[in-house]
Amino acid sequence: MTTAVSPLAPPRFPQMPEVPGVRLATAAAGIHYPGRTDVLLVLLDKGTGIAGVFTRSKCPSAPVDWCRTRLKAGRARALVVNSGNANAFTGKSGREATKLTAEITAEVAECRRGEVFLASTGVIGEPLDAGKFTPVMDELVQTAAPGQWQAAAQAIMTTDTFPKGAAAVVRLDDVPVTICGIAKGAGMIAPDMATMLAFVFTDAPIATPVLQDLLTRGVTDTFNAVTVDGDTSTSDTLLAFATGAAAAHGVAKITRAGDSRLAPFRKAFDSVLANLAEQVARDGEGARKLVEVIVEGAASKRAARRIALSIANSPLVKTAIAGEDANWGRVVMAVGKAGERADRDRLSIWFGGIRVARKGERDPDYDEDAVSAIMKRPEIAIRVDLGLGKGRDRILTCDLTKDYIAINADYRS
Amino acid sequence: MTTAVSPLAPPRFPQMPEVPGVRLATAAAGIHYPGRTDVLLVLLDKGTGIAGVFTRSKCPSAPVDWCRTRLKAGRARALVVNSGNANAFTGKSGREATKLTAEITAEVAECRRGEVFLASTGVIGEPLDAGKFTPVMDELVQTAAPGQWQAAAQAIMTTDTFPKGAAAVVRLDDVPVTICGIAKGAGMIAPDMATMLAFVFTDAPIATPVLQDLLTRGVTDTFNAVTVDGDTSTSDTLLAFATGAAAAHGVAKITRAGDSRLAPFRKAFDSVLANLAEQVARDGEGARKLVEVIVEGAASKRAARRIALSIANSPLVKTAIAGEDANWGRVVMAVGKAGERADRDRLSIWFGGIRVARKGERDPDYDEDAVSAIMKRPEIAIRVDLGLGKGRDRILTCDLTKDYIAINADYRS
Repeated sequence: MTTAVSPLAPPRFPQMPEVPGVRLATAAAGIHYPGRTDVLLVLLDKGTGIAGVFTRSKCPSAPVDWCRTRLKAGRARALVVNSGNANAFTGKSGREATKLTAEITAEVAECRRGEVFLASTGVIGEPLDAGKFTPVMDELVQTAAPGQWQAAAQAIMTTDTFPKGAAAVVRLDDVPVTICGIAKGAGMIAPDMATMLAFVFTDAPIATPVLQDLLTRGVTDTFNAVTVDGDTSTSDTLLAFATGAAAAHGVAKITRAGDSRLAPFRKAFDSVLANLAEQVARDGEGARKLVEVIVEGAASKRAARRIALSIANSPLVKTAIAGEDANWGRVVMAVGKAGERADRDRLSIWFGGIRVARKGERDPDYDEDAVSAIMKRPEIAIRVDLGLGKGRDRILTCDLTKDYIAINADYRS
Repeated sequence: MTTAVSPLAPPRFPQMPEVPGVRLATAAAGIHYPGRTDVLLVLLDKGTGIAGVFTRSKCPSAPVDWCRTRLKAGRARALVVNSGNANAFTGKSGREATKLTAEITAEVAECRRGEVFLASTGVIGEPLDAGKFTPVMDELVQTAAPGQWQAAAQAIMTTDTFPKGAAAVVRLDDVPVTICGIAKGAGMIAPDMATMLAFVFTDAPIATPVLQDLLTRGVTDTFNAVTVDGDTSTSDTLLAFATGAAAAHGVAKITRAGDSRLAPFRKAFDSVLANLAEQVARDGEGARKLVEVIVEGAASKRAARRIALSIANSPLVKTAIAGEDANWGRVVMAVGKAGERADRDRLSIWFGGIRVARKGERDPDYDEDAVSAIMKRPEIAIRVDLGLGKGRDRILTCDLTKDYIAINADYRS
């Protein structure tokens, strides 16, 4: 199994400011991995609101069920994340493990059980021994401190090759407020799959329904526009927390999604989501190339998305990119199989800025050498114009390499 | 690029009888491959009926368009298949190439242009020079002979590692009639993708609408129940031809799908389709294991199919099989992402005959060593019982190995 850092990784973990009202701590509870941290505790000041989006899997993990139920009250005081065990497909014992974890945490965090949120990533189908959190919980609460983003991002990694963080500062009522997020990518871990998890924190005073609106709308073109292999985890979880601490500096609470002050905040919030989502694609298993698929001229945005996902998830397109082959025939194939309206004779395709096909035929001006040079780059853009309407969408993905197979097939051999 | 014969190949090409009214010939026209046959001509006696099913791609190849249009008349006198060039995404020149090929063939076969059927497989987006058929056409017509199945199956291969044929003999009105079919698999060919093609021939006197009904119903659980990578060719074509020659031996023509004589014929016809479809899965690119996915207890057959395809197309399930890992967590994932009704707590999963999970948890009696032994076999059955209803379906696929990547990514490097 390869352990080298992805060649598409950012050069370093970003500088990330503290978020007032948020303290973080990590510990090694020995859940699955030897010699590394595997538990993250985040303590949140009173009054923190929470919003969330989750996997669409019909077989979600126990922590996903837990969070969905507790989200309705909209209040959070603690977040516990463990790596090494996904607590998925663990039946009744899984539900008991979530309850026990929340109880242990609520006691030391001095809050209600329903104010504790949970996420787990790692092995599927193995019982999670929640008792392992007990010995480290006091230490976690005592060492919790603001700004421990990198340690937090590291503790939740599974087969990620680098920790993922992103931050933005934006003015609300002329007061700087902060948005910080961490994520872990769609990876695998012996003997089972892992998960995409992300957590975003802000001190902006934002009412819970507005925070949920921000998140729901924000994921459409960020986390929901990233695919590695088209497989959907049982555990995907994205939670957003708003402590409201900036209210103490005179920021009036935002209670309506239509509040005009929200526009710059939404932009910054979306940029953090987009940055994290891109890092997930950059750490796709075995990835050597970041691929941006842009579909234009579709009948609708929805049609553009289906076609872009068909291209981005096609093993044939992904292996062609891995082979540095501008194989537009496979792009045509992926457009054709998406099931959306397409007219072969209006289709144009670009790799990088170079048009390789137009009006249903190879572009006569297409320079093979120029395209070959583009295909050697670590970041490749595939653009398709269907010539039908105004629908446009963009999906990020990565190539499909032998390392993907090695990571996912070879670990037992 | 690997050229070894798939380890899942049948030991030899089957013995296949002649089909009265069908003569075959192959030639090397130098379309793409050096030193091998790449054109198949099949001559069909007067009165031959034809039925067909095609790719669902919205960007079909020129030969697919050609066949769809000519199918309405329901009469065939010749079939021309070439490998090496798919004549797909070739625009106006592609349409002209189909017309010219049909004209060249009609002249030597002494039939109408509309009675010539065409299929092409190989490179996409390269103009097909139909003029290359002219020099070999006389030779093809002169050498056409019954029973040349193996040569025919070889001429239409692209990255297939073995030729695919299947036959059945069944009694109609107490007269033996023959069903013979050849196919080529879902493979790739530098620099572009190839196609699934299959052609089935019988001397049974079957009216065209009945033949179309046989074919349309027959593919549901055969060719439409096989997947290698979930990618859909622009060119997939399955044609069935009925010469009716057995009428001379006293078989009365079958003109209604409800004819009671049809039942044993349908069974034999379906067995030929199933046999060919299984061979396609056995020759999936890089395949080392044949995988049978059985879904039971679903809300409906349609739901069972979607779930089975979700499992069969999941890169994570396919790489686990390649790694000989009974990774039922990934099967749960694939069930969950299919979008059909599923209740985690009712789900049971078997590898081979061994139940590994039941009622939403790992089966406590599950013997890891016994399952490991099963996973080492070349043929693996995954069975899922959803515990919801009576919907059942079965999909054949293969594992996802490094050789798949090598075949599809490395050929230019």
